[in-house]
Order: sequence, then structure tokens, then C-alpha cells
Amino acid sequence: MTTPNPNHYPQTTFTSTAFGPSLLTDRRKTIAKTTIHTQLDKLKNTGRYDCFKLQWHPTYEDHSMWPVPLHLFWDSDIAKWIEGAVYFLASFGHDEEVDNAIQELVEMIRGAQQEDGYLNVHYTVVEKAKRWSNLRDMHELYNAGHLIEAALAHHSYYKNNRLMEPVVRYVSLIHKTFGPGNDQVHGYPGHPEIELALLRLYAETGNEEAYSLAHYFLSERGNPKGQDGKHYYDWEREQRGEHEYLCPSTYPRPGWYEYCQAHRPIQEQDTVEGHSVRQMYLLTAVADMIYLSESSKKSLAEGEKPWKQALYKCWDNMVSRKMYLTGGIGSVKQWEGFGIDYHLPQSSDEGGCYAETCAAIAAMMLAERILKFDLNARFADVMELCLYNAVMTAMSTDGKAFTYTNQLGSSEADKSVREDWFWCACCPPNVTRLFGCLGGYVWHYGQEEKTASSDTYINVHLFTNARLEFPVPGGKGKATLEQKTEYPGESKVSFALDAPEGTNLTLRLRMPSWCKSETGLSPGKLGQDGVSTKSGYLVLPPSYTSKNKRFSLDFGNFSPRWISPHPYTGQRTLSLARGPIVYCVEDADNAWESNHFKDILVKPGDVAEEQVKDEKTGETYVKLKAKGLKRDMRSWEASSLAPGWDDVQKADVAEEEKELIFVPYYFRANRGGKGNMRVGLQKA
Amino acid sequence: MTTPNPNHYPQTTFTSTAFGPSLLTDRRKTIAKTTIHTQLDKLKNTGRYDCFKLQWHPTYEDHSMWPVPLHLFWDSDIAKWIEGAVYFLASFGHDEEVDNAIQELVEMIRGAQQEDGYLNVHYTVVEKAKRWSNLRDMHELYNAGHLIEAALAHHSYYKNNRLMEPVVRYVSLIHKTFGPGNDQVHGYPGHPEIELALLRLYAETGNEEAYSLAHYFLSERGNPKGQDGKHYYDWEREQRGEHEYLCPSTYPRPGWYEYCQAHRPIQEQDTVEGHSVRQMYLLTAVADMIYLSESSKKSLAEGEKPWKQALYKCWDNMVSRKMYLTGGIGSVKQWEGFGIDYHLPQSSDEGGCYAETCAAIAAMMLAERILKFDLNARFADVMELCLYNAVMTAMSTDGKAFTYTNQLGSSEADKSVREDWFWCACCPPNVTRLFGCLGGYVWHYGQEEKTASSDTYINVHLFTNARLEFPVPGGKGKATLEQKTEYPGESKVSFALDAPEGTNLTLRLRMPSWCKSETGLSPGKLGQDGVSTKSGYLVLPPSYTSKNKRFSLDFGNFSPRWISPHPYTGQRTLSLARGPIVYCVEDADNAWESNHFKDILVKPGDVAEEQVKDEKTGETYVKLKAKGLKRDMRSWEASSLAPGWDDVQKADVAEEEKELIFVPYYFRANRGGKGNMRVGLQKA
Repeated sequence: MTTPNPNHYPQTTFTSTAFGPSLLTDRRKTIAKTTIHTQLDKLKNTGRYDCFKLQWHPTYEDHSMWPVPLHLFWDSDIAKWIEGAVYFLASFGHDEEVDNAIQELVEMIRGAQQEDGYLNVHYTVVEKAKRWSNLRDMHELYNAGHLIEAALAHHSYYKNNRLMEPVVRYVSLIHKTFGPGNDQVHGYPGHPEIELALLRLYAETGNEEAYSLAHYFLSERGNPKGQDGKHYYDWEREQRGEHEYLCPSTYPRPGWYEYCQAHRPIQEQDTVEGHSVRQMYLLTAVADMIYLSESSKKSLAEGEKPWKQALYKCWDNMVSRKMYLTGGIGSVKQWEGFGIDYHLPQSSDEGGCYAETCAAIAAMMLAERILKFDLNARFADVMELCLYNAVMTAMSTDGKAFTYTNQLGSSEADKSVREDWFWCACCPPNVTRLFGCLGGYVWHYGQEEKTASSDTYINVHLFTNARLEFPVPGGKGKATLEQKTEYPGESKVSFALDAPEGTNLTLRLRMPSWCKSETGLSPGKLGQDGVSTKSGYLVLPPSYTSKNKRFSLDFGNFSPRWISPHPYTGQRTLSLARGPIVYCVEDADNAWESNHFKDILVKPGDVAEEQVKDEKTGETYVKLKAKGLKRDMRSWEASSLAPGWDDVQKADVAEEEKELIFVPYYFRANRGGKGNMRVGLQKA
Repeated sequence: MTTPNPNHYPQTTFTSTAFGPSLLTDRRKTIAKTTIHTQLDKLKNTGRYDCFKLQWHPTYEDHSMWPVPLHLFWDSDIAKWIEGAVYFLASFGHDEEVDNAIQELVEMIRGAQQEDGYLNVHYTVVEKAKRWSNLRDMHELYNAGHLIEAALAHHSYYKNNRLMEPVVRYVSLIHKTFGPGNDQVHGYPGHPEIELALLRLYAETGNEEAYSLAHYFLSERGNPKGQDGKHYYDWEREQRGEHEYLCPSTYPRPGWYEYCQAHRPIQEQDTVEGHSVRQMYLLTAVADMIYLSESSKKSLAEGEKPWKQALYKCWDNMVSRKMYLTGGIGSVKQWEGFGIDYHLPQSSDEGGCYAETCAAIAAMMLAERILKFDLNARFADVMELCLYNAVMTAMSTDGKAFTYTNQLGSSEADKSVREDWFWCACCPPNVTRLFGCLGGYVWHYGQEEKTASSDTYINVHLFTNARLEFPVPGGKGKATLEQKTEYPGESKVSFALDAPEGTNLTLRLRMPSWCKSETGLSPGKLGQDGVSTKSGYLVLPPSYTSKNKRFSLDFGNFSPRWISPHPYTGQRTLSLARGPIVYCVEDADNAWESNHFKDILVKPGDVAEEQVKDEKTGETYVKLKAKGLKRDMRSWEASSLAPGWDDVQKADVAEEEKELIFVPYYFRANRGGKGNMRVGLQKA
């Protein structure tokens, strides 16, 4: 285990990274130039921008949704925009409009705080007397969590307490309100988020109330007898006088607290269940607690020690049985979350596929947290998979349009198209937040655990043109590490290292699990100068790094490969991938298609590659071509009198050979077309 | 179109049929000897038997279920048992215990009727003031429907009105209560059943109130503004003061009236949706209404003429997209009903498969009704498919144990096992009712439509050893038709016909759609003596039947065939069928299996047949043997670090050749074992 600073979070360390030209940088520039501004316009046009003025808004009269009214997350929409915007100010420099808006919003938030510290729009304006009356559904603590994250970002950039100060007061009120005491409420949020925010608040500012509150929320979660001998959510429902069977329509049945991972205590949770974003946010906080305990900053109670095992079980369950090839998670629309094991239909007309953008982002957050105490490429592989596929597919190349769900196959009812906003606008600002602090996901660095203070490490998780600069432990100056690469387009990465004399630097470089050949190191090789591999990372110890300041990695053959989901998914499909990029077909390239590629069969045959530049978007990418067979199965229906037929009869259906053009899944839905798209094609 | 008597229902005509030795007869004998009695014991042991005494029962205090309490269908349990028992008395002769029980139950039912004619246990004993307050959920009219069917059976056998008289009084009260008048309630049952019962009551006794009430329930169904400008179920919910989002947990969302096919008027329903038994019972009544209008007994209003088109669309949607290879329908457990198109997972660990026994029985009822006005083998094929597979698999060979759901694949959570009763005991007595009047499904007969009164027809839908005897139209005596066959074990059926001189008999014999070769007729051939085919039936006109009293059919090669579901189901499986029988593998024969045959791959290769007699059950059947490949995919999970892997890596998994033994799906779960079973095996 390695010991980063306790405040070593992507949200704080990203400023140590400067990006060079790359696909990721293109997106970051687009967000800085466009997305931040169009999202600000959306906040203004929808009433969100002014919500902390605590005036009435016509939207508050909308009762079309229950229990969550349309405006319930407005607090978080503001907070997430501030947070993301601050990251881009920090990376791309001053922006008058953005800066003014942040400062104005902060003053409005300050003005909205109640005398006792309470700070929530809905329960101050709409339902004044009902604070904390519905933790299960009403996102009060979720909104608070995002305010905390906004305050941390704001404080870090503006170096003042204009936002931090009211937020810390609010945290204090919440800390006083919730806890094990007889005069305290034994509740916890239906939508986890505040926990991970509180732990960052503690780690970055030393706020002990924040730690204690996060710990309480986590340890109380799922207690079957938490309040007056009852599950808290049952108890509070009774307090509200609601019928036992009255529950959100996201629940498949009353009392299905799997939805919010409150069906049992964390130590007893061994599979990922329910709402996938909630599950990921919760586990991210759990991982952070484990890190804090393993790095001896805080300790867990005896009953909480199994949290680590629960975390691993949940991770394994997710990755091996509940994750799409794209890194998307959540196959069920009703609860925006996980289905049963291996339930991974590609499209809604096949019975599922939700793969919410926020969930893939949150899976990256979780992976990053785990890597802090368990450096294993299996976590970083998934982090990268999510980034380049399930996450990046969510934003258009122009930065103005988004997807909320990221299906692997389109249908007439759910075409592969984008929207410019959502009533529940969680995803677009989450993309902004992630890309804003993306530098923090590229590498971890710090002082090697339990060693001399000059022992320093850099663990490289992602490969892209970027430069890391940080003060080495012991105050001897700065170390820099620069990567130069065409990755993910090509397989070679060159490194240039510069560190003060005697830094004792260990470098660990992820070797992607999908590589077909051994990772090549130059100069050097395994076993020489102490070079070794561990848990999927190539380890270059001080004996190597002191001698070699310029070196390169090659992950070998980047030729396209055919991949399949597990047979238990029932998905007998083949998909194309190249490097970390999963591909799809869409009708923009295959204009003859009108049935969402449901009738296309492929064999794992030859694939041609071609580097192309798309005129419309300016995007450069590697296009793939392969042969497919179109067998129009729609006609089979009319001829089948009974449900099923002789297998031999299938030959009667006309077949036509087609050349299929594949583009990166992240590039889909950028060039018009009819919205036909698919990742996995039937295996012939 | 042909014209049976208006009262030509299986429930009335079955007495014209005498069965000879066959698989079906074995089951009928078992039910007569065992099932009727064990079910009577169950009625007595559970409190059901005495419920019409209107005493309190401890079960009435159970509030574990909402909105339907455990005892809500007790009325129907009694009614269905009476109905089924009467059919067996009529077929197998007097049985002291059964006869006594029927008579006692009838007297108790008579005694339970209220002064105004009301007759329902729950609303007389438990919720006295709440009659008709929740038509959507509370099965009041459903129970009434089964009482009507019991009364018709009872009247027919006992030739008295002891049950008919109170039931007709109750129908009168319901007719007065519901209707279009300002002083009437504009509601209709959440669980259709009474409609088909009322139409039989009209057809068999001429009760015009019954017809008018059935017609009202059907035509009012799904009216979006039926009561005070609102959907009736919304209106009654408001009357109850219930929250809009409070709904049964069978609903995926509030207001999902697809559950009970009340989401829109019948003429606008073009797919089968929601609860599959409700859907089938509703369409059975619709089919009967269409028959009554086409046979000019009654006429439909202008707006109801599209009912026929709606019925066909629903049928086609069901058979081509929502029916399992076994004839099972309903892939979703939550609402015991239909999923989206092509959603046909085999097992609950694959995300579905309900295939309730009652639903398959009801699909047979629907097919039989349609055959009355549209003689097409595509309806009879499905009727037979359901009978020999989805229905027959529901009862053990000893007649004492049942299944409620009929999955095509087992799993650890849902093994292939039987129960001896269910709290919701709809299925076991439905099997009894069906087998009791099974003779009525074998053939339709009567006077040829719009022809001379001596023109007679017999349409033979099912093949089994049986003898039909009925008075020919015109009062000239009796016709008899006898079938002799080993069907479904063998492909040949011999017929012996005897009809009075001048009967002008047309015989139509179904040619199963799965036959690989042309149906052979001997003596004779197509085009000779007017022999022709029409809509899947071989037509033997009077010019043939007047000359040939002995003839036979041969459906050709009965060798096993591999069948597949539609590729859009995502089920890339092969199943074995032989004749109308679908096969399965289970661990009773393949004792090495412990993973529910999930790892078995097959190719459409050679299949060996062997006639065997099982010692334990005494059952004779054709056993099939084929080669399979066991590839234990459980181990793949541990080795996959990311969700997906190169297709070529699959070769790493060890393979082992296995001899697979298949038995008829209807025979599963009769010989112990570990509950591993599967119909569709992965296609290699």
C-alpha cells in the first residue's frame, strides 16, 4: 500500500497536471469554451440560477411527479456547476462570465442560509415545516453533499471562505441533527453523496464533525432497528402517515430499500443492487473510509472491519456480472440501476440497458478511491474503460448535447440521439466536473508508505499527453513526469522524468489487461535494475529511475479485437474494440440500415483500420471495417405459425453481405442519421 | 364459418365424448381418483370449505398482503372445485364423497346470499360496508364469474336450480348495479372472468341480463372518461381516498392499467399486455361476443366492430412475440404477465419466465372460442401446444402436486419442483376444470352454417383415442365418430364414422403445422371425392364421407426435431420436440448436472428415440438421447478482469462431451432429483 496525502483526491490534485494535445484535451477545451457557458445559460433559463433567492417559481407548482418534484435537485445543479466551473477556471484561466456567475451564486447561497444554518431551497420555500421528514426520497442531504463539494472547489480556487463558511455551518447543523444520541435522528440519506463529500471535507480541512457525520451515516445505513426498533425509512414513513404500499414508482415493491442500498448494513452487502449512482457514491465513501483506516488516520469499529470485504464483493459482482462491455452499469430503467446477475440487454427493446452517465462517472470515482489503498490494474482498467466509453459517449463533440442513458443498441422507441438538457440534470454537470479534475485520475503520487520520507512514488493509471509536477516529500524541490503518446490511438508511451537528486522515486505503470502481448520497456527489461510487475503494474524502482530519465512503454499490438460478453448474459454477440476503445456501428456510416442492426451477423474475421478526420466535427479517429451478413429476421415472424420453428428452416431467409463501418462508441450520435446504432452484433 | 349450437362450449359438449386409453385419459383418471379428493381435503383444511357459512376465520386477520388479502379468492376456489368435480361425476360416475361435498357446499352458498341477492364472503364478513368499492383489485366480480360457471355445471349435472337460482339472483343484482344509467356504476372488473361466464349463462339459458351485463363490462372497459369524466379506476381510487401513487406492487408504475387490460378500450388494444390470465379471460369473452354477432344471435354496436381486428392483433402479438416454445405465456413475475415483444427468458435467473398454468389453460379457452368462427389450424395448433406442454407440465403424474409457474429453465432460487397447494390456489382447480371438460376441446360439431338443416360437420382439433356421439341436426338420429391412435406418440390416426343416411357430413381434420411432410389420407387423396385443404384442415366433404366410413390420417415423420425461438428473443437455444411434445433435460436422467444445464451446448445433430416405462410413476413415454458439450462457464468469470474478453480465449475452457437424455417437458419433476431442468440448450 502507498500513502498519498490524505487530501490526495482528483479534485485537489488535478492542478498538478498539465495536459498536452489529445482526445481528452479536445473535450476539456470544448467544455471550457462551450459547455460551461451553455450550462450556465440553462441554469438561467430554467429558474435554477435564481433559486437561492428563495422566491417562488412556477415550477414549484408542478405536481406531476411524486415524491420527487421537478425542482428538488436545483440546489445540486447549481453546486455542481460551480464545482465544475471552478476546475476549468483553475485549468484554463480567468473567464469573466463564469467568474461573475460563481461569485453571484455564492452570494445568493449565503443569503439563503437560515438562522440556524439550514440551507435547502425546497424546504425553505415550498414545504417549510417538513425539513428532514423524508430522507428516503427528498434529496436534502444529497443537495448538501454537492454544496460541500462546491465549497471545497471554491475555497481551493478563490482562497476565501465565502462558500465554505455557510457550508460548514450547515454541516454543523446536520451533525447536530443526526447521530446516535437520544435527541438525534437516526437517519441517513436515501441518495448517498454527502458521505463522500464529508470525507473530503474532513481530509482537506480537518473538519472532525464532517468525519463523524460521514461515519455515522455509513455505519447506521441499513440498520433494521435504527429508530424506535424499526428501519429508519419505515419509521419515517409512518411518521408521515403514509400507507405501507405507497412508495416511489422506482420501487418494484414496497420496502425495496435495495433501491438506496439500505436493505442491510454495509458489511452485509455483497452484491451491487438498486440505483447504480447511489450504489457507486456509497461505495466511494466506503472506500475512502477504508483508506483512512488503513492509512491510520482514523480507525473503524470492529463491526465495520468487514466493510472492506463487502466492498470487494460488490466490486467483483459489478465488474464480472453487472457491467456492460462499455463500462456502463445499470440495466434496469425502472430503478435506474442494477438488474440480476448477467442481466445485460443492449437496448430497451431487448428488455433493458440504462447505463446512466453519472453511474459510469461514479464507477471511475470508486475505482480511483480503491487504487489509493489497493494498486491493482483491475481497478484502473475499469476506470479507463468507463472514461473512454460509457462516459465519453455521453457528450457530443461540440459540448452542447448529452445523453443520460447510454444504451448499447438503439430501437425505434429509444434512438441513439442526444438532448441538450434534462429535467433531472445530473449528468451534464457531472461530465463537466469529471473532465475538470481529470488530471487527478491520470496518476497518484506521494510519499511511499512506511519508508524514509524521501521515498517517492508515482502510479500512472491513464496514458495521455500530460505533465505532472509536484513537490517531492521532504521539501527538496519538485519532481516532474511527462508522458508523450498517441494513446489511445497508438500503443507507445514515452516518459521523461525529472526529480531532485535523492528522490528515490518508484514509478508504477499500468499494463492494460486487454494487451495481447507483454508490455515492452525501453531501455531495460523485467528483472533488470529491479524492474518487476505487480498486480498489473510495471514497477520501476529507484534503481531504474535513478539511471533512466527517458524511457518508453509499448503495449504491443493495437489491432482490433472481437470481444464478447459472458455467455450467461445470453448476449451471443461480438463487439469490436481497439485499445481501450469499444466500437459501434451507426447508420451515419451504414446508411442502408433501418432496423437498428438487429439483423446483422458477424464472424470474428478480418478488420481493416483507417485513420480518418470527420469533416463535420473535426474529430480524428480510427475507423474500422469488417464484413457482416444481413439476414432480415423481421420476415420470419409472419411465416411462423407457432412460437418456434425448425432450425433448418432458417436457411429460407435471404442473406446479403454487407461491409460494416465501425466508429468509436464515444463518437456516436454526432453526425445526424436516423438514430440506428449498436455495439454488439449477433455472432453468426 | 360454421355454426355450432350457441351453447356449444367445451363445458357443455364434453359429455358427447368418451375417451379411450391415452396419456390424456391417464391424467383424467388420476384427477377423478385422486386430485378431486386431495383438493377437497385442501379446501377443508384451509378453512375454505366452510367460508360460505359466513363465520369469522383467523386467516381474515392476516394483513400481510395488500390490497388482496389471502382469503379473497376463497369463493372462487369453492366454485372452481364444484365445477371441476361435477365434470368428473358426469364422466366417471357417482362418487359419494364428492357428491356429498357438492351438495353441502351448494347449500352453504345458498345460505350465504344476502337479502338483496349479494353473494360474496369477504364483503359480507370482513368489510361489510365496502361492497363494490374496489373493482380494480378486489376480485368481487371475478368470484361471481366462477360462481356462474359452477352453477352452469351444477345445473347441467344435477338438473336442479339449487345453485343456479341464487346465482341468477346475484347476476340480477349486479346487472342492476352496473350499467350506463345515471344511477348505475360505470365500472368493470379488474380481473376479467365474469364476462365469459355471463356469455355462457346467456347462451345456455337465454338469460338476457347476463348478456347485457357482459356486453356492458366489455364495452365500458378502458373508457378514459367513464365515471364523472375520469377513468373508472382513478375515480374509485379517489373515492377510497387513496394517494395517486398508492398501487398494488404488481404495477411497475401508478395507473398502469395495462395490468388489467383497462388502459384503453378493447377496440384499441393491439398487443397483449399485463396480467396474462386476465388478458386471456378477457379475449375469450371478446371472442365469444364476436361469435355471437357473426352467428347473428346478437349484434355489436358500430364502435365494437373493430373488436375482431383487435382480437386478431392481440393473438398474433401473443403467438409470434410473447409465447414460449411450450405454449407458456407471461415472462414477467411482477405482474404475472407479458413482457415486451420477444422478452422470453427461460428462467428467473435470466430475468424472467412466469408462464402461469392458468394462463396456458386460458389460452386454450381463447383458441377454442376463436375456432368457433374461424376454423384455422393456427389456433388449434396453439391449443394443442399449450395442452401437452405448458398445461400438462403443471400437474404431477400422481395428481397430487402442481406448479403455478412453468419456467423453461430452473435455477438455484427457482428449482423445478412442485407444491401441493398455493395460497392463491387458482391453478390446481383450473387443471381439474380443463381436464374435466376436455372432450369439448377435441372437436366441434353441429349444423353447417347457412345450409340445409341436414348439413352436418365435425371439426377435429385434437387427436386421441376418443369417440364422439351426437344427434345430427334435423332429428334423424345420432352420428358417431371414433378416433383410434397412439398420438402424440405416433403419427397415425384411424377414424370410424357412423351417421344416419343423408346426414351430409363434412369432416375437417387439423393438420399440425409442425408436420414435415404432407398429411396422408387413406383411402383417398387431395382432389379426389372433393377432398381439399383449407386453413390447415383437411376437408372431407359429404362426397367423401358418404363413401368412406373407415379412413386414416398419417402426419408423417414423427422423428424428433430441433426448434429455436425467434432470434430477436436473444435466446440462441435449441430445444427438442417430437410431435406436439416439447422436451427437456433434467438431472433425474442426467445426474452429473448441478448448474441447471446452463453450461450445456448442443448442435442440431442425431437424436435417438426409445420407448420407456418409468417404474416409479408407471408413465410410458418416448425418451430422446442426443450429444451435448459441457463447457463450465462458471470458471470464466474469475479469469475475466474486465467485462468482456477476446472471443478466442473461450477455447481455454475445458470441454467435456455428454450424452443428454431428454424427457417430455410435461413429465418433469416427477422422479425426485435436485431440481435441475432446462428446455432450451445453448446452440453450440
